[in-house]
Amino acid sequence: MGRAREGERAGAVSVALQNVRFDDILAAARRLQGVAHRTPVLTSRTLDALTGARVYLKCENFQRMGAFKFRGAYNRLVQLDAAQREGGVVTYSSGNHAQGVALAARLLGVAATVVMPADAPESKLAASRGYDAEIVFYRRPEEDREQIARRIAHERRATLVPPYDDVQVIAGQATAALEFLQDKRGIDVLLVPTGGGGLLAGSAVTAAALDPQIAVYGVEPEAGNDFQQSFLAGRRVTIPVPDTIADGMMTQAPGELTFPIVRRLAHGITTVSDDELRVAMRFAFERMKLVIEPSGAAGLAALLAGKLDVPSKGVGVIISGGNVDAASFAEILQG
Amino acid sequence: MGRAREGERAGAVSVALQNVRFDDILAAARRLQGVAHRTPVLTSRTLDALTGARVYLKCENFQRMGAFKFRGAYNRLVQLDAAQREGGVVTYSSGNHAQGVALAARLLGVAATVVMPADAPESKLAASRGYDAEIVFYRRPEEDREQIARRIAHERRATLVPPYDDVQVIAGQATAALEFLQDKRGIDVLLVPTGGGGLLAGSAVTAAALDPQIAVYGVEPEAGNDFQQSFLAGRRVTIPVPDTIADGMMTQAPGELTFPIVRRLAHGITTVSDDELRVAMRFAFERMKLVIEPSGAAGLAALLAGKLDVPSKGVGVIISGGNVDAASFAEILQG
Repeated sequence: MGRAREGERAGAVSVALQNVRFDDILAAARRLQGVAHRTPVLTSRTLDALTGARVYLKCENFQRMGAFKFRGAYNRLVQLDAAQREGGVVTYSSGNHAQGVALAARLLGVAATVVMPADAPESKLAASRGYDAEIVFYRRPEEDREQIARRIAHERRATLVPPYDDVQVIAGQATAALEFLQDKRGIDVLLVPTGGGGLLAGSAVTAAALDPQIAVYGVEPEAGNDFQQSFLAGRRVTIPVPDTIADGMMTQAPGELTFPIVRRLAHGITTVSDDELRVAMRFAFERMKLVIEPSGAAGLAALLAGKLDVPSKGVGVIISGGNVDAASFAEILQG
Repeated sequence: MGRAREGERAGAVSVALQNVRFDDILAAARRLQGVAHRTPVLTSRTLDALTGARVYLKCENFQRMGAFKFRGAYNRLVQLDAAQREGGVVTYSSGNHAQGVALAARLLGVAATVVMPADAPESKLAASRGYDAEIVFYRRPEEDREQIARRIAHERRATLVPPYDDVQVIAGQATAALEFLQDKRGIDVLLVPTGGGGLLAGSAVTAAALDPQIAVYGVEPEAGNDFQQSFLAGRRVTIPVPDTIADGMMTQAPGELTFPIVRRLAHGITTVSDDELRVAMRFAFERMKLVIEPSGAAGLAALLAGKLDVPSKGVGVIISGGNVDAASFAEILQG
């Protein structure tokens, strides 16, 4: 409870009274045109045969820097004014959001600082450094990365770019769902990997605007079911740091801005075990020749594990990212 | 020399005076419509930056059964008459051609027999069995798989489906290049993985018909450069069984039907080492989130290794397949 209140207090100033409108999403799509990839949608007869559904996979693992996160980061950064660009941007993440911010910043000629744990894997450091970001280390669990990022932003007059609790970040992520539903008709159910809820909230707004009949489900790890608990309780519930291979889904509570949107517009939240994630990653490797990171496989895992009633339906699955290092992938393949 | 003459004699009856016309390829494309996947073409800004070229990857690793081989097999089998369908089909291969024939046969309700070495990997057996093919084992190197296949075909009045020396097989493979050149304008150079030369011959005929300015190159393993030697010598040269990780490129000589086409229409043959194949597979994994088998990575490997002068050109690369077992892939990733 202490943590939940702390989290609420920290974010309260920036997100009060904000909402994501479909117009924001359409505007984001215009900004991203020619900058983000319009990623392909793949199908698999084997997958259709296994599930009895017509399944479409929106491959955001093929997005620039390997995940949908580039969309939100770029949509946020491209709207900075001249003074803000001069001050640079700061973010806290050891994962795809940091890389998305770093790449967007480089494209726009903006300096980026990424706050990362001192024990972050070398591959994640290398990826952010590869996009010319400055790395600031902190020691976990003693230090709070969000507070460090806020302090740096204050000292440098830099702009903090949060991973999901931001209207323009959410609107950017939503463009993945917008392209998906524009490119493929007949989607009845949409499965969306869910960490802080940016992609899920954006997808839910998009689906509600284009076709309210579409049932949008978030999928998160069993061990990190903060969204599911919150959805059922009707309020944001905070959980301990989850122990899961889904390194992009280790949030402890839904976002302050994302949760009300999800609660209002999503159909539900389902969960998958780490073993179900591994099965999905192996299926993607063997039968579809796709590299998917653990978090990115959540929707496919839910489908393959039969978590939802889909036979004879059109099922859209967002494959949210493919950034997994060789050693982890090799281990999961052979597990 | 003895082997070369033997190979020529064995194939002489079936391939004499045959040629592949562009009309055969257009007809194959009509037959494959709605049956084969029209596979996507992917791009990578990283790849463009590394090579200075505009690179397009035609992803036949996303084809049904995981490789372009389905195209040729189906195009051949769908033209069998009622009596031939009744007799079934026979092929010799431990790789993608066998799976392509087995899948095409199942779709058409035709019995398929695959002649495989007794020591074939379990994954390859499982794949062919999964498509309901009957497996006949032989002992290598004592027995000749082609002779066994011919004997079975004779005994059962079944039709032998060769892996590349067949007009309709070549025409089917060519549809990969046809789609590629239809979907992407501005391809100046086309790189084609080359084993027996079916895909290369078909691609060369297609490019010559659509735009004779396109330079078509075959790419084969250094250790198995039978096509390169033959191309330079102006006649089919036979080499010992090559030692390479490219298990789809272990042919000892160019095809009798494919070679004259390649000699007339291809610009050249280049080679890549096993290490260059591994580098390409790791690049595809890390930067493009693609699973490519060793043979399928030949074109990408040649490009990344700088084997061709491509800066400022449009380069089309056929990624021919993605069937690699988990253990081998894991080993290559971590190598």
